[in-house]
Amino acid sequence: MPMTIAEKILAVHAGRDAVHPGELIEARLDFCLANDITAPLAIEAFRRAGATKVFDRGRIALIPDHFVPNKDIASAMQVKRMRDFAREYGIVHYFEVGRMGIEHALLPEQGLALPGDLIIGADSHTCTYGALGAFATGVGSTDLGAAMVTGKAWFRVPPSMKFVFRGERRPWVGGKDLILYVIGKIGVDGARYRAMEFEGEVIRGLPMAHRLTLCNMAIEAGAKAGIIAPDAVTETYVKERAKRDYRVYRSDPDAAYEAVHEWDVSDLEPQVALPHSPENVRSVREVADVAVDQVVIGSCTNGRLEDLREAAGILKGRKVAPNVRCLVIPATQQIYRRAMEEGLIGIFLDAEAAVSTPTCGPCLGGHMGILAKGERAVATTNRNFVGRMGHPESEVYLSGPAVAAASAVAGRIVHPDEL
Amino acid sequence: MPMTIAEKILAVHAGRDAVHPGELIEARLDFCLANDITAPLAIEAFRRAGATKVFDRGRIALIPDHFVPNKDIASAMQVKRMRDFAREYGIVHYFEVGRMGIEHALLPEQGLALPGDLIIGADSHTCTYGALGAFATGVGSTDLGAAMVTGKAWFRVPPSMKFVFRGERRPWVGGKDLILYVIGKIGVDGARYRAMEFEGEVIRGLPMAHRLTLCNMAIEAGAKAGIIAPDAVTETYVKERAKRDYRVYRSDPDAAYEAVHEWDVSDLEPQVALPHSPENVRSVREVADVAVDQVVIGSCTNGRLEDLREAAGILKGRKVAPNVRCLVIPATQQIYRRAMEEGLIGIFLDAEAAVSTPTCGPCLGGHMGILAKGERAVATTNRNFVGRMGHPESEVYLSGPAVAAASAVAGRIVHPDEL
Repeated sequence: MPMTIAEKILAVHAGRDAVHPGELIEARLDFCLANDITAPLAIEAFRRAGATKVFDRGRIALIPDHFVPNKDIASAMQVKRMRDFAREYGIVHYFEVGRMGIEHALLPEQGLALPGDLIIGADSHTCTYGALGAFATGVGSTDLGAAMVTGKAWFRVPPSMKFVFRGERRPWVGGKDLILYVIGKIGVDGARYRAMEFEGEVIRGLPMAHRLTLCNMAIEAGAKAGIIAPDAVTETYVKERAKRDYRVYRSDPDAAYEAVHEWDVSDLEPQVALPHSPENVRSVREVADVAVDQVVIGSCTNGRLEDLREAAGILKGRKVAPNVRCLVIPATQQIYRRAMEEGLIGIFLDAEAAVSTPTCGPCLGGHMGILAKGERAVATTNRNFVGRMGHPESEVYLSGPAVAAASAVAGRIVHPDEL
Repeated sequence: MPMTIAEKILAVHAGRDAVHPGELIEARLDFCLANDITAPLAIEAFRRAGATKVFDRGRIALIPDHFVPNKDIASAMQVKRMRDFAREYGIVHYFEVGRMGIEHALLPEQGLALPGDLIIGADSHTCTYGALGAFATGVGSTDLGAAMVTGKAWFRVPPSMKFVFRGERRPWVGGKDLILYVIGKIGVDGARYRAMEFEGEVIRGLPMAHRLTLCNMAIEAGAKAGIIAPDAVTETYVKERAKRDYRVYRSDPDAAYEAVHEWDVSDLEPQVALPHSPENVRSVREVADVAVDQVVIGSCTNGRLEDLREAAGILKGRKVAPNVRCLVIPATQQIYRRAMEEGLIGIFLDAEAAVSTPTCGPCLGGHMGILAKGERAVATTNRNFVGRMGHPESEVYLSGPAVAAASAVAGRIVHPDEL
């Protein structure tokens, strides 16, 4: 029976020859993860289950990234619960402050999320790993707690939707612009509980950092997973990182899709999602005279080395506008180190941006750049709901790193070519 | 009439030939400052006074440093009040995120605190500038608000105490160790409302960064001010930075002191203040087997380039102990930039320390490294009161940067020579 890549991965992990959309299956997990917000609840569920050990000490990642370095006593206690659990149960992949990063940047970088994997994480952006050809999805903390015991989870097999990108990307158009474009077209529930499969010549030419950004925001269209079939780009990225074996799956040519969207993106300009929804998308050239107070370049969506390079390319030799705070947050310690070696951090400091140690921080209104009443930010993050970055009367505009950096310099939202 | 340097500065600013300890005087201010915690209250007082302008737009500094990049909505609103005020009244020295630093590191660096100055700040560690031969002291926010209107303040002239350091500093012994030693000897109220004047051959040979550390903690002995007469070291530091004229004062040889302490510090080892008081001081060699969870290298006390060099000298080629979070916080954007150019930031990252953008953060339990229940930190900060860095059941040990860095590597408090 022909299957999509998502169906093949689920079938294999369920020990089945085939699965059909809508079926309920129990499947073996390759990896699971939680962060400082969700792990404490997962651990509570784990302990309530009376478990004495985890299913596999090497297949669980616990990552303090949301409120670290700890912003207050409550967040310090959260991390302590996670750290204590990691020590007690010998969790191999606990990442301490100074060795950590934002989970969805860190796991691919460390070769812990791999093609063909079935991964669940107690964080909605777990879908990021679909960029590697994995089936990865966010779950609740209780499910994650159960998974830490059994190494398994229940899934309803999602129908698949195909998104085909034809043509050639214009300058400054990247994975963020593609996914914003999609969400703008289909809406925040346009792929509800679906697997979004991305393909076409634009995807084939898309560097891994951009693929990760693209799949990262599949959840913003309501998807269960975003996924890109592994190719040479995937292989190059994975082969130097993989900490264990993996298998590559691809959709059968005659696999069934609930819907197929095909776009030629050759004329696509950089995209911006206006407040207060990721579906409220416009071309940046349609966004006129929006002054900004803060610019955030970072997050699990756009905090990778390639994103920092793009931002630095624009900020080099320029200054952030006097009334703007520009925060640059490399997503992992390794990205920070490499960005420094390449001179990017120096460019950011010279431009008068503040460079933070890795944290999710401002993306979720956690810390490290919270907006006051009436303030407006452009951010390379993933959500712009009411109050997402601070005060309920603040506003967040979502963009890629090029538009964000250019807007930091201009003091208002601009196309990079307008500088 | 013979006078001390403190008395001379106060007399000149009061338009008097002489002042005596205990006298109440009104004196003209050269500079005043407030931060994101205190400025909003000062601004409230300013507005209540019905003032329509500040006494001098160029002699006020407003510095968001305690809770920035903003940790929450409340702190974002605080900074917004300060920023809006700075724009409304044309305050020249408002320092935005990305261009800022910790106030007491930033003002000397920017040539805004100068020899002979009379300075008040709505922050207790304003006494730092005494290292430049200024009379500088912390005041309440209301006093600062009044000063922004009038450019003047009332003072009771403090009696002076002299502290003479003889001998030669051993390796790893710096300004922090000298001031901890003093506080250990005289106690946290040992210099209550006194001007502490530091001199002797050890002071003459002390680099400016160490002098700033020394005077910074005069308040921890209860002093109104700490002060060091300007000399060649001062002149070198100031001449390339000064943004305005200044005058140099020195104590008369026959000036009257309430007390004189003289110590030969040739045998002094690095000092550590144990919980929960800066007067609870021991030689680091007497502190046995104290495991630590966190190390903080930074703050207005020890976040200067020289401090980072000292820490990097120890961390180079080594790793922070696995169970320790080591936070390095350059005190200003300029220090961050220079530390990067010198390769220090690279050393910290390689050692697996987290490097933060400038902030007071953890020193006052604000954010950026808060301790959980039962946790213990070594910090180059200035106070170790109960709950200072987080949970009431956490502990802070104060030290200089060398002991802090060595302890980060060892995972317990050690003398740098023990590595």
